[in-house]
Amino acid sequence: MTRMMIISSDCHAGLPDGRYREYLDPDYREAYDRQLARLAAGGDVLRDQVAEFLDDREADLAEGLNGAWDSAQRTKELDADGIAAEVLFPDGSTKGNGAPFGVGLHPAAHTKPDRLLAGARAHNRWLAEFCAEEPLRRIGLAVIPCVDDVESACEEARWARENGLGGVLIPSVWQYRPPYNDPVYDPFWATCQELRLPVHTHSGAVGDFGGWHLPGAAGIFTTEASWWASRPLWHLIWGGVFERFPDLKFCVTENGAWWVPSMVTRMDAKWNGSHATERFGSAFTRHMPLKPSEYFLRNVRIGASVMARKEIELREQIGVGVIMWGNDYPHHEGTWPHTEKALRETFGDVPEAETRRMLGETAAETYSLDVAGLAPIVERIGPELIGVA
Amino acid sequence: MTRMMIISSDCHAGLPDGRYREYLDPDYREAYDRQLARLAAGGDVLRDQVAEFLDDREADLAEGLNGAWDSAQRTKELDADGIAAEVLFPDGSTKGNGAPFGVGLHPAAHTKPDRLLAGARAHNRWLAEFCAEEPLRRIGLAVIPCVDDVESACEEARWARENGLGGVLIPSVWQYRPPYNDPVYDPFWATCQELRLPVHTHSGAVGDFGGWHLPGAAGIFTTEASWWASRPLWHLIWGGVFERFPDLKFCVTENGAWWVPSMVTRMDAKWNGSHATERFGSAFTRHMPLKPSEYFLRNVRIGASVMARKEIELREQIGVGVIMWGNDYPHHEGTWPHTEKALRETFGDVPEAETRRMLGETAAETYSLDVAGLAPIVERIGPELIGVA
Repeated sequence: MTRMMIISSDCHAGLPDGRYREYLDPDYREAYDRQLARLAAGGDVLRDQVAEFLDDREADLAEGLNGAWDSAQRTKELDADGIAAEVLFPDGSTKGNGAPFGVGLHPAAHTKPDRLLAGARAHNRWLAEFCAEEPLRRIGLAVIPCVDDVESACEEARWARENGLGGVLIPSVWQYRPPYNDPVYDPFWATCQELRLPVHTHSGAVGDFGGWHLPGAAGIFTTEASWWASRPLWHLIWGGVFERFPDLKFCVTENGAWWVPSMVTRMDAKWNGSHATERFGSAFTRHMPLKPSEYFLRNVRIGASVMARKEIELREQIGVGVIMWGNDYPHHEGTWPHTEKALRETFGDVPEAETRRMLGETAAETYSLDVAGLAPIVERIGPELIGVA
Repeated sequence: MTRMMIISSDCHAGLPDGRYREYLDPDYREAYDRQLARLAAGGDVLRDQVAEFLDDREADLAEGLNGAWDSAQRTKELDADGIAAEVLFPDGSTKGNGAPFGVGLHPAAHTKPDRLLAGARAHNRWLAEFCAEEPLRRIGLAVIPCVDDVESACEEARWARENGLGGVLIPSVWQYRPPYNDPVYDPFWATCQELRLPVHTHSGAVGDFGGWHLPGAAGIFTTEASWWASRPLWHLIWGGVFERFPDLKFCVTENGAWWVPSMVTRMDAKWNGSHATERFGSAFTRHMPLKPSEYFLRNVRIGASVMARKEIELREQIGVGVIMWGNDYPHHEGTWPHTEKALRETFGDVPEAETRRMLGETAAETYSLDVAGLAPIVERIGPELIGVA
């Protein structure tokens, strides 16, 4: 293979407001209509400002954005961007409400659990159809609001595997439901391990948030978002989840990677024992024969969308085999529709073998992709060599 | 002044279990007795492990630990440790339950608000008496659980000032009550500004915590504690609180200082605008004419207990005038009873003027101390020059 196999570990897909209706169980359609009417009635100043920004962007990018739900358009856009395969998170548009009842990246604590599950199932049904149109190239993630009902979460994971989806997205914020170090979730981790479904969180939710109407909300949200999205990571590591489920894969997506070295180093220091933590004695180690950094390298992958140069420079400390690049299509934070240019700028001086791992090979392993099947697509649309041969 | 004026910005004082009874409003004494009985009945494995560690320590340090509540003992210990003045947080012992109803460093979300206030008042009454025995040297912080009732919080702040206390401690975790960027707190910030009472958080609480009985609890707690204790900082900065209350001082205590440069730099970057945040438009700046780093340097002080060498090396980036050293007496994480040795090891190559600021002068300014009154004490007990003349 001479061309680059580029796999985006962070893309988004979802129907526009309203179109999930037919995928919803009939009992929930009325509540969905009411939710849409409420959203249409208008929001606050900040929401309007964001909508205005996105309106302008829509005018510029035209039908390219419709690839969020239009299969042919999506393939065209990703072909042009050089992307051979992609992982599909919900919330295709940053403007619409996404999946019913707000269940996508940041389900609200106050939404009734049965509604969240109904909304998730509607999205998952549509997504399974959407991914079936490009089964080699689309790794769809089932949205599973596992914090309310572990048994339903296991059932939904089985449904996802049987219907061709390739991973699961769980809430990054549990909002006073059990945290992920609680063994109550063990049946769910066991199911995901058994079915080889990598478990994901994605930035977008912050816990205990006062609301967008308060002063400073945007600053607070963007200051903390990466912490909340990575928080499940140390609950799983310290909770011994990767000790009990050694083949479970956990991916932290669109959350940068700059925070990894200091976080993992600090965790190792605590595991090793220090003056400040000695009073906890063996509480750090008795259920964890490996160091936090060892579980991290074995079980965790970082969906490092739109990597900064600083992160490329830190790649050895982060773990080259941990990093999976992503373009965040069709969101505005990403590199689409200028991915190749961006990749040449950030990866230009990185050895080829490392570039290939971060841009595609690690993702191919993580999601058990059919690399031979993808080869003709790569040869047709992939960029020429990126990095230093 | 030739000797070093050492002020500890982080010490603890409080009565042992049970002895707060006489300071409690009579209506709450029965509930306090019930709480003590429940605690005495025993806890979980981790709690027992910590208690065992502290038993051993008690055997070693003997009556020195009684300085948590014994005034003469405390003065003797701090004299020997070279500390001229100190800021007194609650939870004198890391073993007992501290102030009634657990109101000290980490009030629980489920405790009834009126009980928290009653417990705080009991502690504050005792503390006011305790500080009156060494009025020049003891800066007592009133415990004020402000998140439930802002009006009572303002009253308690006035009581604190009238009774000789020198600052207030607020919960670092609001647990689904309004966050500190909510203008509902403005009357409280106004009161603290007017009365020149610096507002404090102190590490010790983590939000949305599953409990000590869960696997990995100690690792999770120590991994996140510093984030939770600093979280109010960016709520106050982004919330425009320091714009509306330019003379308010806010201190983040026993939380390290290593996290400051990257946090403040990232906040400035968001305020300046970046690709990832442009959709929020003027939401970052319309209520904040100054940059986050400018509010930080003006309004924030870091109670940097037991500084690490790494933090000393970062002092320019943190802000030399922001750092206030502390010894954490009588907790085991601190430098007591070997403070002078520890200071010579960590500050030995720092210019004298900077050392004097970090070890005492900034604290003296922050708490409006009577430096002339302290001078004879400093000359009697303070160490000889630390740092490079």
